[in-house]
Amino acid sequence: MYEATAEAVLIARVPGSFITQREAGLDVELAGIPGDRHYGLLRPADSRQRFYPRGTMVANRRQISIVSVEECARVAAKLGIAELLPEWLGANILLSGYEELTSLPQGARLLFPDGAGLICEGENAPCTDAGQAIAEAEGIPGIKTAFVKTAYRMRGIVCSVEREGMIRQGDPVKIMIEGV
Amino acid sequence: MYEATAEAVLIARVPGSFITQREAGLDVELAGIPGDRHYGLLRPADSRQRFYPRGTMVANRRQISIVSVEECARVAAKLGIAELLPEWLGANILLSGYEELTSLPQGARLLFPDGAGLICEGENAPCTDAGQAIAEAEGIPGIKTAFVKTAYRMRGIVCSVEREGMIRQGDPVKIMIEGV
Repeated sequence: MYEATAEAVLIARVPGSFITQREAGLDVELAGIPGDRHYGLLRPADSRQRFYPRGTMVANRRQISIVSVEECARVAAKLGIAELLPEWLGANILLSGYEELTSLPQGARLLFPDGAGLICEGENAPCTDAGQAIAEAEGIPGIKTAFVKTAYRMRGIVCSVEREGMIRQGDPVKIMIEGV
Repeated sequence: MYEATAEAVLIARVPGSFITQREAGLDVELAGIPGDRHYGLLRPADSRQRFYPRGTMVANRRQISIVSVEECARVAAKLGIAELLPEWLGANILLSGYEELTSLPQGARLLFPDGAGLICEGENAPCTDAGQAIAEAEGIPGIKTAFVKTAYRMRGIVCSVEREGMIRQGDPVKIMIEGV
């Protein structure tokens, strides 16, 4: 068991926008974060599930995305920018205190003090949506594609909700890896 | 990608009973098999999730259980019985053609011709419910606990539904392991 901290919790509330905004807390449900862009029990299959016809509805295992202070700092350094904000990555939680977040295995649990529990569904592959947001914020167009190459294995994870409850800024987060 | 065959599909329809019965086909939903004992988006946490208070509702990742002809034959031989039926194990699908079913990693997909897709959630640990069913069927009381020890790593997997659709006896099943 490891301990981390939820430095920020965020939601993508603006229709059509990838970017998230900070909140004091979020009440997560089995389908994700109500009002968030990725909320839903189902979502359309895309290029990540090529074994299903594109657009058919499949279980949504990408409800909540999590990035870490440590990995964002490493990506920022490699991109030559001062800071990489979780807002630009469309992240819902910014964690600190767990070094290799993106390597967290599928099935690992993240447990919050209120009782909420998330299941790690695996690595979140870097996409040009996030690259574009960074490029616009920094005014450096080349970052759009540079981000995708640079952030590989450092872009955090996606999770689904196992147990409903509140997730608050400042929460200590227990990370449990099965078999450990 | 591997190919297997659904030799039988089964449902636990009798209230209070662990044992499953064969059907020609089952129409699986996001919450599992309608009418089956393990149907539901949520289920109460038990000893498998000791990090949640027992009985609180969590996402149901144990909707569908799958065993294999090959592993059942190995367990039967070790127990000294002629046959181990999927009914006694409360299994929903009996597969053939994939040797090490219980070792299938979490996140592997099982894809059916009608479009249904299941996600492997990992190994199903042997329990005394199944041991009891075998003991009663064979008239050998000692098998109840012998099964739990013997069937470890050969008792099959649990799955949840990723994409809805029909699962039929005789279906060819594609098994996909990420990264392979």
